[in-house]
Amino acid sequence: MKIDYFGDLKKIRNTKPLVHHITNYVVMNVSANITLSLGASPVMAHALPEVEDMVSIAGVLYINIGTLSDRWIESMLAAGKMANKKHIPVLLDPVGAGATRYRTETAKKILKEVKVDVLKGNAGEMQSLAGEKVMVKGVDSTTSAGMGTAGALAKEYGLTAVITGQEDYVSNGSQSATVKNGTEMFSRITGAGCMLGSVIASFMAVQKDMFASAIEGLVTFEIAGEKAAARTKLPGSFMTALIDEISLLNEDTYKLSDVTIK
Amino acid sequence: MKIDYFGDLKKIRNTKPLVHHITNYVVMNVSANITLSLGASPVMAHALPEVEDMVSIAGVLYINIGTLSDRWIESMLAAGKMANKKHIPVLLDPVGAGATRYRTETAKKILKEVKVDVLKGNAGEMQSLAGEKVMVKGVDSTTSAGMGTAGALAKEYGLTAVITGQEDYVSNGSQSATVKNGTEMFSRITGAGCMLGSVIASFMAVQKDMFASAIEGLVTFEIAGEKAAARTKLPGSFMTALIDEISLLNEDTYKLSDVTIK
Amino acid sequence: MKIDYFGDLKKIRNTKPLVHHITNYVVMNVSANITLSLGASPVMAHALPEVEDMVSIAGVLYINIGTLSDRWIESMLAAGKMANKKHIPVLLDPVGAGATRYRTETAKKILKEVKVDVLKGNAGEMQSLAGEKVMVKGVDSTTSAGMGTAGALAKEYGLTAVITGQEDYVSNGSQSATVKNGTEMFSRITGAGCMLGSVIASFMAVQKDMFASAIEGLVTFEIAGEKAAARTKLPGSFMTALIDEISLLNEDTYKLSDVTIK
Repeated sequence: MKIDYFGDLKKIRNTKPLVHHITNYVVMNVSANITLSLGASPVMAHALPEVEDMVSIAGVLYINIGTLSDRWIESMLAAGKMANKKHIPVLLDPVGAGATRYRTETAKKILKEVKVDVLKGNAGEMQSLAGEKVMVKGVDSTTSAGMGTAGALAKEYGLTAVITGQEDYVSNGSQSATVKNGTEMFSRITGAGCMLGSVIASFMAVQKDMFASAIEGLVTFEIAGEKAAARTKLPGSFMTALIDEISLLNEDTYKLSDVTIK
Repeated sequence: MKIDYFGDLKKIRNTKPLVHHITNYVVMNVSANITLSLGASPVMAHALPEVEDMVSIAGVLYINIGTLSDRWIESMLAAGKMANKKHIPVLLDPVGAGATRYRTETAKKILKEVKVDVLKGNAGEMQSLAGEKVMVKGVDSTTSAGMGTAGALAKEYGLTAVITGQEDYVSNGSQSATVKNGTEMFSRITGAGCMLGSVIASFMAVQKDMFASAIEGLVTFEIAGEKAAARTKLPGSFMTALIDEISLLNEDTYKLSDVTIK
Repeated sequence: MKIDYFGDLKKIRNTKPLVHHITNYVVMNVSANITLSLGASPVMAHALPEVEDMVSIAGVLYINIGTLSDRWIESMLAAGKMANKKHIPVLLDPVGAGATRYRTETAKKILKEVKVDVLKGNAGEMQSLAGEKVMVKGVDSTTSAGMGTAGALAKEYGLTAVITGQEDYVSNGSQSATVKNGTEMFSRITGAGCMLGSVIASFMAVQKDMFASAIEGLVTFEIAGEKAAARTKLPGSFMTALIDEISLLNEDTYKLSDVTIK
């Protein structure tokens, strides 16, 4: 495993991998813009008659259950299975797992039927999937979870688990990393977690070690957030600045990375 | 009835009530951002298998029919009935009522089957629901309505009616208020009315007198609009400034309120 | 055929034609904002029970298949047929045609069952509809096409074809135009093509010569893009600047037009 932040960012910019999103209505626009700003090529497609075709030409599949319904779940499963068949990596963001039984069960169903490579969620979502008792209010986490939860999920499902929060925890069951980058401003806009998913997914398309690509995506997005927060503390302006800053990342930027790997 | 603008805004910021939106695709992102910027916690969930669970943990339900379809209507009704059962307040925004029979009938169906606490719309929408003859073109109103329409709707459905326009009219059937805050810039961006709905809904979660919470939400949103319009008269920049200004409101800001209560 | 950029822009601003969009989730917000900023009145409605009513009161119908599904296709066809019946012009944007069979076939089905007045797409999309062999990756074009493809499509379907790219090609089968306005920044945000569709559609509502309205829309949108790009080269800021600049266009602005008509 070799982490190469800027090397892999350059690969994204040069190869513009297609990032197939099946994501929620709230963030589709900003997720597409973050992906473009990073240098990758986003596509949103959710209809059952086309998801298998679309994922087959993609570099990665990103499933996000933020505004799910039965028909979309069917498409998520079909796309995920085709991605597995074609050896295309899959990221799952179980938005709101723990808040309603429907979301928790859907996330578990996807984890059972699709081989997910990276599972990324906040503490409440990840604890609910790990079977821990947890209070969840809506889609924002009010709890905290640690590396133990990440490791347990990693082992249970054979994937890289990412738990976001003030500190982020990444585990693939044998290795673990703590990322301390980021900004409080992420909690003041909608979709920060969803946009992070787009960034990690983009790295998954060019870096086949999923533990590495998860860390690279986290650090990339969170450093851009820090730079945007240095420009403004107002949420509307911050959203614009965040998209701007993603496009400005360079080799120097990564000196800000604050990662501990064990 | 006691209006306490800043006191109730502080309650929102401190308790971060969950605002369950079943709203239209066009505004989901900006509505979530306005809600966060105000200090509340937005969630969007529309699938029949989960709306009852979601609304049960929410502080308020906000139904907006801006891009409706049969399945969504089914979920709006289910969520509304569960909100009634759990004594969670309900705001209805009948976007486009009067423009198509489908929208008018859907709004009336919701008003009949769900106890709505606040009904908020522009003149054309509200007049069409009051059974007045009216010309409506799309989702923007080209007519005007007064306190009479608001009062009639308030009495007919036992709710607080809010008619937005250059002057806004609020009536609960026995009390009435005219709000003169706001800015012409609201008509130059999409979703101003929908975002206002998110703000009023957030106040409904902390202020149980619906006449008061409607006025508080109106004044809060419209003063933020005035402050944003003082920064820029360009529509793209105004949208960003509006989200920024909502986050900056303080006790002093409310000195700008221009409300007449009778 | 008489092109009158500013005259027709003034008509849009004065008459505020209703632009009925059946478009994709990703761009709904920015498309509505671009339409408003231009001076027209956007409405989004996709449910089968109302699309015929809505299009009947509209000045133009804009169909965009960016995030299609079976139910939406059904509504697109119903709206298109009603538009034909009422002599309301129709714009089709075949987003992603060529990327999946579902999209290619849907675009062809609409072209067959609905009389489309303007067909606008990027090179890959238009080539795939013209039956040319082409590689398409997702919804962004990686190929190039010329006036030949535009002319062939214009003749085959009896419409005005617009192929966007570094140079844009417009043909109605007998006349052709090349537009060299625009900015590389359009490729760095999501939905530039979709927003262009909203602008062309708005011109179609006031200028009945479709070859002229296509050129007017192209030039208007692309000049606004040039002006926005002169303000910023950062993608988040550019998006805001683009919406701003659309609202600022005046007679002088059109001196920047770079169009060759044959």
